[in-house]
Amino acid sequence: MKRFIDLADLEPAAVRDLVALAQKLEHSPEPRVLAGRILGLLFMNPSLRTLASFQSGMARLGGSSFVITPGQGTWNLETKLGAVMNADRAEHVREGIPVLASYADALGIRAFAEGIDLQADLNEVGFSAMADLVTKPLINMESAMNHPCQALADWKTMDELHVPAHGRFVLSWVNHPRALPLAVPAATMTMAAQRGMEVVVLRPEGYEIPKQLADKARRLATASGGSFSETSDRSAALKGARVLYAKEWGSTRHYGDAQGDAALRAQLGGWLVDESWFAGADPNAHFMHCLPVRRNVAVADALLDGPRSVVVREAYNRMPAQMAVLHRLLA
Amino acid sequence: MKRFIDLADLEPAAVRDLVALAQKLEHSPEPRVLAGRILGLLFMNPSLRTLASFQSGMARLGGSSFVITPGQGTWNLETKLGAVMNADRAEHVREGIPVLASYADALGIRAFAEGIDLQADLNEVGFSAMADLVTKPLINMESAMNHPCQALADWKTMDELHVPAHGRFVLSWVNHPRALPLAVPAATMTMAAQRGMEVVVLRPEGYEIPKQLADKARRLATASGGSFSETSDRSAALKGARVLYAKEWGSTRHYGDAQGDAALRAQLGGWLVDESWFAGADPNAHFMHCLPVRRNVAVADALLDGPRSVVVREAYNRMPAQMAVLHRLLA
Amino acid sequence: MKRFIDLADLEPAAVRDLVALAQKLEHSPEPRVLAGRILGLLFMNPSLRTLASFQSGMARLGGSSFVITPGQGTWNLETKLGAVMNADRAEHVREGIPVLASYADALGIRAFAEGIDLQADLNEVGFSAMADLVTKPLINMESAMNHPCQALADWKTMDELHVPAHGRFVLSWVNHPRALPLAVPAATMTMAAQRGMEVVVLRPEGYEIPKQLADKARRLATASGGSFSETSDRSAALKGARVLYAKEWGSTRHYGDAQGDAALRAQLGGWLVDESWFAGADPNAHFMHCLPVRRNVAVADALLDGPRSVVVREAYNRMPAQMAVLHRLLA
Repeated sequence: MKRFIDLADLEPAAVRDLVALAQKLEHSPEPRVLAGRILGLLFMNPSLRTLASFQSGMARLGGSSFVITPGQGTWNLETKLGAVMNADRAEHVREGIPVLASYADALGIRAFAEGIDLQADLNEVGFSAMADLVTKPLINMESAMNHPCQALADWKTMDELHVPAHGRFVLSWVNHPRALPLAVPAATMTMAAQRGMEVVVLRPEGYEIPKQLADKARRLATASGGSFSETSDRSAALKGARVLYAKEWGSTRHYGDAQGDAALRAQLGGWLVDESWFAGADPNAHFMHCLPVRRNVAVADALLDGPRSVVVREAYNRMPAQMAVLHRLLA
Repeated sequence: MKRFIDLADLEPAAVRDLVALAQKLEHSPEPRVLAGRILGLLFMNPSLRTLASFQSGMARLGGSSFVITPGQGTWNLETKLGAVMNADRAEHVREGIPVLASYADALGIRAFAEGIDLQADLNEVGFSAMADLVTKPLINMESAMNHPCQALADWKTMDELHVPAHGRFVLSWVNHPRALPLAVPAATMTMAAQRGMEVVVLRPEGYEIPKQLADKARRLATASGGSFSETSDRSAALKGARVLYAKEWGSTRHYGDAQGDAALRAQLGGWLVDESWFAGADPNAHFMHCLPVRRNVAVADALLDGPRSVVVREAYNRMPAQMAVLHRLLA
Repeated sequence: MKRFIDLADLEPAAVRDLVALAQKLEHSPEPRVLAGRILGLLFMNPSLRTLASFQSGMARLGGSSFVITPGQGTWNLETKLGAVMNADRAEHVREGIPVLASYADALGIRAFAEGIDLQADLNEVGFSAMADLVTKPLINMESAMNHPCQALADWKTMDELHVPAHGRFVLSWVNHPRALPLAVPAATMTMAAQRGMEVVVLRPEGYEIPKQLADKARRLATASGGSFSETSDRSAALKGARVLYAKEWGSTRHYGDAQGDAALRAQLGGWLVDESWFAGADPNAHFMHCLPVRRNVAVADALLDGPRSVVVREAYNRMPAQMAVLHRLLA
C-alpha cells in the first residue's frame, strides 16, 4: 500500500486485513517497528482526534511526527494554480507540500471541502491537486468528500460490537448551527456499503446525497451483498436498525449558499437524535457519531451518555486503525 | 500513585520521597524507563514552562507526548453540563477528554479558574468535572486553586538551597495589570505548610486568603510542626524570613468583579517587590516566584537579576519534579 | 562547536566539513546518536521549513524536540531591557529563555529583525541579547541579519549541483507585497562569498546592501578567491551567471518606513523573475530561492516549475544541514 486516500480503493478483504492488523497491533504491540521513521502531518483545518491519535499511534510504533498547521505558527498556504500571490497567503502548496514531504517518510494531509462548487468538491479537486505533489506514502486525514481513517475505525468498531455484516446501518442527518462538509457522511455510508450492510440514509428534503456518491455506495453495496437507499421517513428508516450513525452536513440543494442552507435548517430543529428515535430499531442498536458533536443540538445528552453510545470507542479506534495504516505504508 | 492532583493528597513523607526520586532521576537518568508510553497534554490555557518541561521530561524518560490546545489548531471545548451547543464551542469535554485519555497512558490537564464564583472555584468544580472523566493516570497541570507540579518543584528548590524545614516562608501579594487566579498562592502556601514552615501570607486588604484555603494550610502546618498566619504588615511579616515568595492574585473581596478589583489595585502600586523589602529578613533570604512575572510591575529588575533570585532554578525544577511524578504514575 | 550563529564564524574548510557531515548523515544515518537529547525550539516568528526540518532531523538522530511559539498557546515575550511590563507581554525573555534552555540540551531561537533601526538590526541587538542568556549550545534559526541554516543548506545544494567554486552567483532583489528582513540576503551573499564565488548583488536603487554587510562579504570573498559587487544593471549582472538567487527585502534607504518603501516598490513590478532573465546566463544556470515565495509577484510560475528551479532541493537540504549542526553541537 502506497497511499491511503479512499477506503473504497481497497477490496473488502483488504479492509478486513487492515482491521485485523489494527487488532493485532492493539494486543501485540510492535513498539520499534517504525523506529527512525517520520510522519509529517499537515492540517489545513482544525483537529483534535486526528492530531492526537496520529501522534500517539506513530509513537506507539516507535516513530516520530511533526505537525504543521497553517495560520497557527505557520503562514497560510495558497492552493489556487496560477495565483498572483499578493495577498495574505505567503506560500503555495506547490512548494510547501513537496518540502514537507521531503522531511517525512509519510505525509498526512487534512484539507476540508471548499464548499462553493459541489462538483469540484465531489471530484476532490483540492485534495487531488495536493496529493499529486506527493511521491511519498500519503494519508488522507479528511478531504472534501472522504475520511478513510474514520471509516476504517468505524468498521473496526462495528466488528468488535458484533454488528452483523448485513445488518441495517442508518446514516441520519442531524442539525448543526451551520453547514458542514459531506466528508464523513460520504465515507461512512460507502464504508457500510463495502461491509455489506443494508445502508439507509435518512435526511430531510434538501439534504439529498449527491448522485455520484449514491452511485458509488450502491455499487459497493451490491458487490458485497448489501444495499443502499435514501429516505426522509424516520420510522421506516430505523425499523430493525442495528446502527444509527448521526452526522451533520450542509444542504446539497443549497451547496455553497449559507443563507439558503440556514433558512432550510432553521425548520429542522426536530432532527436532534434522542432515545425516541430507537423505538422501532433492534433492541441492541448502537448509536455512532464521528465527533465532535454539538450536544442538545444534534444529539441529546441522555443518548450520548447512555449505553447505546459508542462514540468514544469509535474515536479510540482511530488510533489502532491508523497504526495499521502506518504499518502497512512504512513497515 | 494513580493521580497527581493536589500535593496535600500525599503525606509529607511521600512528598519527600517524590523529591528524592526527582533528585535521583536528575543525577542517574533512566532514559528508557517510559519507552513506548504516551503522555497527553491538554491545555485549556496558555503555557510555557509546563508544556516545555513536560515534553522534555517525558522524552528524557524515553516516552512521547502530544499536545492539544483548544483554540490553537483545535476548536474550543464546552465544559458546562447540559449546554445546548449552538455557539462557538464545537466539542464537549465529556467526549473530548475521554477520547484524549484513550490515546494516552497518562493525561495532564490545565484548566484555570473560571473566576466568577469563588466557592465554585474553591470547590474545583471545573477541574473535578474533567478529572471525573479520566480513568487513566491524571496530572493537574494547574486548576482553579492548585498547581501541585509548581509546589513540588518549589519544595525541591528549597531543599537544595538548604532552607530550614521550619524557616519563615512569606508569600506576598504583588501587583499585576489585572486579577490572576489563586492557584499558585494556594498551592505554594499549603506546600510550605506541609513542609513544616512558618508560613506568613502578606497581602493588602481585599486580597485575604479564603477561609477554606487558610484552614487547609493551618491544618497541614500544624501536622508538620509549622504555622500559618496572614497579615498586611510588611515589616512584621518579613522579619527573619528565609523565603519571600511573590505572587499576583485577584481580590477575593471582589472575586469575579474586574472593576472592583481594578479600583483596589490601582492604589497598590507600592506592592512591587524590591531589595528594600528584605531589610529585616534573614541575610541569606531567597526570592521566589513561579513565573511568568511582570518586571517592574510586580518585581523590580534588580531583584530578579540579583543573587537572591532563584526563579530560574524553580522553573528548571519543574522538569525533574514532573519526571518523578511521571515515573511514579507510569513506570 | 558550541554555537551556530553565523556561518562566517567558521573557516571555509570548517563549512566544507559540515557539508560533508550532512552528506554522510544523509547516506549513513546515525539513528541513535542523539538518543535522550532534547532540542528546544523557540519561534518568535512563523515557520514552516525550520520547524519541520529541525523536528524531523532531530528525530532522525534519535533525539526529541519541543516547540514554543509565543502568541500561539504561549503568551508573548517582552524583549526590552528595563520594560515596565504593564501591557500584553506577560513574560520577559530574561526569564523565558534561560528557563527553556534549562529543559533542553540545545536551543534554537528564531527572532526576526525589529525593522525600525537599521544599525540596531545590523548589530543584531535583539538576537544577541537573547543569545547572551543561553549557556547551552545555541542555534540561530534566523535573526535580524542572518540565517546560517539556510546558508549551509544552500552551500550543500550548490555542491551537489556541481556549481563551480568560483562561478558567478547573482543575488537578485525581487518584489513582494511588503518589506521583508535582510536576513537571507545577508546570509546567502556572505555564504557565496565564503565559498569563493563571484558574488553580484542585483537590486534597484533604494535597496542597496548596507555597507557593513557589503564589507563583510567583500572580506570573505577576498579570502576565498572570490569577489563581491553590486549593481542595478540586470543584463550585466546575469552575464554568465551559474546561479540566480532571488530574494525579497525591504528598502534600506527607507528602513523602518513602510510608506517610503511601498512608494518605491510600487514602481518595481518588473522585478518579477522569469526565464527571460536568464538570456545571458550560463545555459545550465540554476534558480534558487529560500522559500516561501510569492508566485507571480516575485517569481513566475513557469520558472518555479521548470528545470532551472532547485528550490525544493534547497529546502530539503535544510534537514541534513541542520542534522550536521546538531551532531556537531551535541554528539
